[in-house]
Amino acid sequence: MRWENSVIAQLRWAQKIENLDAKRRVGALLAGKVNHGDVIGFGSGSTSFIAIQAIAETLQQKSISCIAIPTSQEVSFACAALGIPTLSLNDAKPSWAFDGADEVDPGRNLIKGRGGAMFKEKLNIDSAAKNYILVDPSKLVKRLGERFPIPVEVAPTALSFVSARLRSLGAASLELRLGTGKDGPVITESGNMIIDARFDAVEPHLESAIKGICGVIESGLFQGRENLEILVAD
Amino acid sequence: MRWENSVIAQLRWAQKIENLDAKRRVGALLAGKVNHGDVIGFGSGSTSFIAIQAIAETLQQKSISCIAIPTSQEVSFACAALGIPTLSLNDAKPSWAFDGADEVDPGRNLIKGRGGAMFKEKLNIDSAAKNYILVDPSKLVKRLGERFPIPVEVAPTALSFVSARLRSLGAASLELRLGTGKDGPVITESGNMIIDARFDAVEPHLESAIKGICGVIESGLFQGRENLEILVAD
Repeated sequence: MRWENSVIAQLRWAQKIENLDAKRRVGALLAGKVNHGDVIGFGSGSTSFIAIQAIAETLQQKSISCIAIPTSQEVSFACAALGIPTLSLNDAKPSWAFDGADEVDPGRNLIKGRGGAMFKEKLNIDSAAKNYILVDPSKLVKRLGERFPIPVEVAPTALSFVSARLRSLGAASLELRLGTGKDGPVITESGNMIIDARFDAVEPHLESAIKGICGVIESGLFQGRENLEILVAD
Repeated sequence: MRWENSVIAQLRWAQKIENLDAKRRVGALLAGKVNHGDVIGFGSGSTSFIAIQAIAETLQQKSISCIAIPTSQEVSFACAALGIPTLSLNDAKPSWAFDGADEVDPGRNLIKGRGGAMFKEKLNIDSAAKNYILVDPSKLVKRLGERFPIPVEVAPTALSFVSARLRSLGAASLELRLGTGKDGPVITESGNMIIDARFDAVEPHLESAIKGICGVIESGLFQGRENLEILVAD
C-alpha cells in the first residue's frame, strides 16, 4: 500500500466537505503566510487538509520549501503525497503552526478533536509561539459545548475511573466513541480511547481539571491560550 | 513461558531486597487487614511484592479469599503464581489498596515510580477510598527529592517538549530512563518513556503543574492526598 492511495481516498472525501469554498479561501489565506524554510506545525482535520493542499500549491508556484511537523498519520500521508518533508516534534521546533477547530468562542477558547487527533494537535499548538486557527463561520459559537462534546483521550485501563471523575466535574453525558472499520471503541494513534463528554457549562478551569484526572492523556478543550490567531473565512 | 517462571525469578530477586526483614514485618501487618471478599488494589515494587506473599499465606491459613486489582504485569504474574484472582479497574472498584513508596515526607506526600509503574499505581491509589503505604524507615525523608528524582511518564512524541517544560518548572536535571534487556529508553507498560526529573525544591502544586504539561501521562509525585495511611515497619 502506498500512502498516496490513502490520500486519494481523502481527496474523494474532500468532495463531501461542508463549507468547502470557505475552507478553500481560508486555506489560501494561510498559504500566503508560508516563507521559505519555515518549520510549520500542521494541524489535522478537513480544514487543515485543504490548507495543506493550498500550501503545496504555493510552494510549487513560488519555488520555495518548508518542513511540516504533522499531528496525525492522515497528515503525514498527505505530506508524503504532496512532497512536503516532515520532522517530528522531537527533532524540530515549529516556527509557527495552524489547525482547525470544531468550536471557537468569543474568548478564543476552542473545542477540537472530532477527528480524534486532539492530543498531538494540542502538543503542536503548545509548541508553537504562534498558531493560526482556521475556521469557517459555522464554527463560531457563543458558548463552548453548544454543538460539540469535549473529547477526552483516556488510557484504556482508566476508563471507568475517568468516567466517574468526569461526572464529578459536571459532565451531563458521556459517550465512549465508536467508529467504523473496527468493532468496538475507536483507538487513537497513541493507543488510547476517547470519551466524548457533554458539559452544559464549560467553567474557566475545566481544561486543567480534566487533565488533572489520573488516566486522562489530553482533552480537546483549549482555554486561555495567548498564542492563537483565529482566521475566519467568510 | 509460564508466568510462574517470572515469579520464581522475582523470588530470587527478593533475596537481595534491602531491609528485607522490615518489609516482611510491614507485609505481615498489612496481611492481617485482609477480610474475606475484599477487592484490593495491589501496588507494585519490592515491598508490595513481599506484602503480596504475606497476603497469600494469610488467605491460605484463614481459608478466605480476596480479589486483586494489579498495578503492573509483575504483580499480575505474582497473583497468578500465588493463586489470587484478579480483576481490572474497569471491572471493579477496590475496597482498599496498598503500595510502597520511594520517599515519604512528614506531610504524607510521596515519590514513587522507581519501578516504572507510577501511572497505574496512582490510578490505584486515586481509585481507593483508603490506602496503606508500606515503608521501612529508610523511605522517610524530611524533604521530597532528597534522594530520588520525580519520575515522569511521557508520550514518546512529546519528549523534547515535556523536557523543556520541566526545566521551566525548575527541574535541576533531567534524565531519560534507560534499562537493561532492551537497548535505549525503558518503555512503560502503557508504551511511554520515563524522564527522571530532579527538583531541588518540590513546591506544593508541582504534581498538578507537571500533569498539566501536554504529553505528560502521569508523574510519580503524590501531593496532598487524604486517603493515605503510612505503615512503617521498624
